[in-house]
Amino acid sequence: MSAVATVLVGTPEERLRALGLELPVLSAPRGNYVRARRHGSLLYLAGHGPVPDAAGRRLSGKIGANLTPAQGYDAARSAGLGLLATLAAELGDLSRVTAVVRVFGMVNGAPGFVATPGIIDGCSDLLIAVFGPEIGAHARSAIGVAELPGDMPVEVEAVVAVRD
Amino acid sequence: MSAVATVLVGTPEERLRALGLELPVLSAPRGNYVRARRHGSLLYLAGHGPVPDAAGRRLSGKIGANLTPAQGYDAARSAGLGLLATLAAELGDLSRVTAVVRVFGMVNGAPGFVATPGIIDGCSDLLIAVFGPEIGAHARSAIGVAELPGDMPVEVEAVVAVRD
Amino acid sequence: MSAVATVLVGTPEERLRALGLELPVLSAPRGNYVRARRHGSLLYLAGHGPVPDAAGRRLSGKIGANLTPAQGYDAARSAGLGLLATLAAELGDLSRVTAVVRVFGMVNGAPGFVATPGIIDGCSDLLIAVFGPEIGAHARSAIGVAELPGDMPVEVEAVVAVRD
Repeated sequence: MSAVATVLVGTPEERLRALGLELPVLSAPRGNYVRARRHGSLLYLAGHGPVPDAAGRRLSGKIGANLTPAQGYDAARSAGLGLLATLAAELGDLSRVTAVVRVFGMVNGAPGFVATPGIIDGCSDLLIAVFGPEIGAHARSAIGVAELPGDMPVEVEAVVAVRD
Repeated sequence: MSAVATVLVGTPEERLRALGLELPVLSAPRGNYVRARRHGSLLYLAGHGPVPDAAGRRLSGKIGANLTPAQGYDAARSAGLGLLATLAAELGDLSRVTAVVRVFGMVNGAPGFVATPGIIDGCSDLLIAVFGPEIGAHARSAIGVAELPGDMPVEVEAVVAVRD
Repeated sequence: MSAVATVLVGTPEERLRALGLELPVLSAPRGNYVRARRHGSLLYLAGHGPVPDAAGRRLSGKIGANLTPAQGYDAARSAGLGLLATLAAELGDLSRVTAVVRVFGMVNGAPGFVATPGIIDGCSDLLIAVFGPEIGAHARSAIGVAELPGDMPVEVEAVVAVRD
């Protein structure tokens, strides 16, 4: 008998570090809203765009126009890192996440760019790497929108279940 | 005294059959996500596009361009059938649905196509026919998006309440 | 010691009146859905567009094309008034709102119009003025969509927590 199993080692924070990632400190929202709002055991996360890179730069523009799909995937991964930063700021400890329930991915694509799921996988892959496939598995949509705030390449919103 | 009442006969599955519809077996999601994620008594359903027709074909394109509104309505109905297939796969029995809470309908329309509610009615009409007006009634948005995965004509996401 | 505090005077209904606003009676939804669906302590609100003005007119069109950003902000505020009208119709009393959990703002903008957060602030500012910053604070996305039903300039969907 054989089985393929994913063995998760350590905490979500340790897995982030093993991926070479560090949680950024997010700037204040650009608008009259908050990054997360809790109701019962659910945390509703606002739409998050990519976080700035080490040099403080943020990509902008449309995937399939001035940005490549690979850059779009990386931008979605970076938006996922932003979601994790907000979760950590709210919860103190990412181990309190019990389920990533819903991910809504919005892609700023050029006209005709329909490979949106592969872009939002950048975020989904990160969340599943950090939380593991049981906690990390989520329902998802990945759509192409007309425009995003400040011409961000992607934006991702989520609903996450948490425990005290 | 007179009253107009809708009498629902049979189970949701029987009503589906009376409509001449059969639940398809859905292919795996194209992306790193799952079709449904449960939290408490709520099932969050991923965005679903139309299911393939009897010949295995799937419509693609923009409503108001290469597709007519009637084809769009049918595509939304087909997406609703996909949602029902996922519900049946998750629950075993569609009678366990206690409320269709939220429907989010995304229409891949040509520029200027603003009759999006009539398209998403294809999905809403089916859900209400199958579950009846009390269980089936839902809050909804029906918007025109820039692009959908694989150039699908419509995509529908939902939140559904269920009992054990 | 000094502190800046927002002192909320009166009920949400009184604060609305102090703003010179009156709750409209909404027309029936244009489509097979309902304006609100409750599950447990959450009310899911359908996408709401601006309500008609005193003369019964409704703005339509794209912000950045035939409409200015200031008109867009006002349209979002008007959509917020529509959300409040639905809440009042469902709850009787706006004091039963315990949290505005999630706002999803959709902007019908011209190509290249990326200042969407400032538009949806029209809705957020109103909700926070009426409910106060503690109850009114919400997670949010504010995106540019391709088209909205009937060419509305904005549409806003929300999830709101309520008590009996």
